[in-house]
Amino acid sequence: MNAHAEFVIQPIGRIKSSLKNKAEAPHQDNEGAPSAWIEIGDSYSEGIQDIRVDQEILVFTWFHLSDRDVLKVHPKNDPKQPIKSVFSTRSPVRPNPIGLHRVRVLEIISGKNLRVDHLDALDGTPVIDIKPVLK
Amino acid sequence: MNAHAEFVIQPIGRIKSSLKNKAEAPHQDNEGAPSAWIEIGDSYSEGIQDIRVDQEILVFTWFHLSDRDVLKVHPKNDPKQPIKSVFSTRSPVRPNPIGLHRVRVLEIISGKNLRVDHLDALDGTPVIDIKPVLK
Repeated sequence: MNAHAEFVIQPIGRIKSSLKNKAEAPHQDNEGAPSAWIEIGDSYSEGIQDIRVDQEILVFTWFHLSDRDVLKVHPKNDPKQPIKSVFSTRSPVRPNPIGLHRVRVLEIISGKNLRVDHLDALDGTPVIDIKPVLK
Repeated sequence: MNAHAEFVIQPIGRIKSSLKNKAEAPHQDNEGAPSAWIEIGDSYSEGIQDIRVDQEILVFTWFHLSDRDVLKVHPKNDPKQPIKSVFSTRSPVRPNPIGLHRVRVLEIISGKNLRVDHLDALDGTPVIDIKPVLK
């Protein structure tokens, strides 16, 4: 394996959310995350044209504030939980801090702003991909 | 949105597969993809210690051979299928060519090589993240 290969992620958009800092963030999507907006960049908006209101989608984010130099974590950042190898957890702290969020689209404005039902990511978090949920 | 922000992905491993070129690759995981090995790099193997045989995991790959300058595609690369905006498809051709594969672990060797039941990615494809399937 060539350990020196690297790839560059270009954000396609950003999260706009009432979650402004880590202290407010829940530890999973289903633990009270608020609805949020996904703002797609102008040069990528053509790529979301076929997304529809009420559709379920997978949103991929990049936890840009996360420590990446971590291979063991306390799940949910709770010191009472036994430490685990990071790829057995959904911790945002990980070598490539990709977040995966399954959400429902509530509203689409101007062909580039999607409101979704709940999203556990801070305001300003980059969005790096969107995929349909497969049946 | 700052269009100039970029993030660097560091592969944590690679796929070892009998799929050697695109002509052989199926178009979805459930359409006949073969079992494959995930070879985790030595410096990341501590991160998979708690993964167990028979567990289901999400494997994130980086389709390093994909064209990234694409916002509309024919699904499954089939010209008879109507063209669609790329974020409504699972096409490997997309701005950030992340692949998402839900697989079952069949075997673990040396604490760093995982055999999984089916994986629709070419031999040599970089692995960028692994997450547990949530119940």
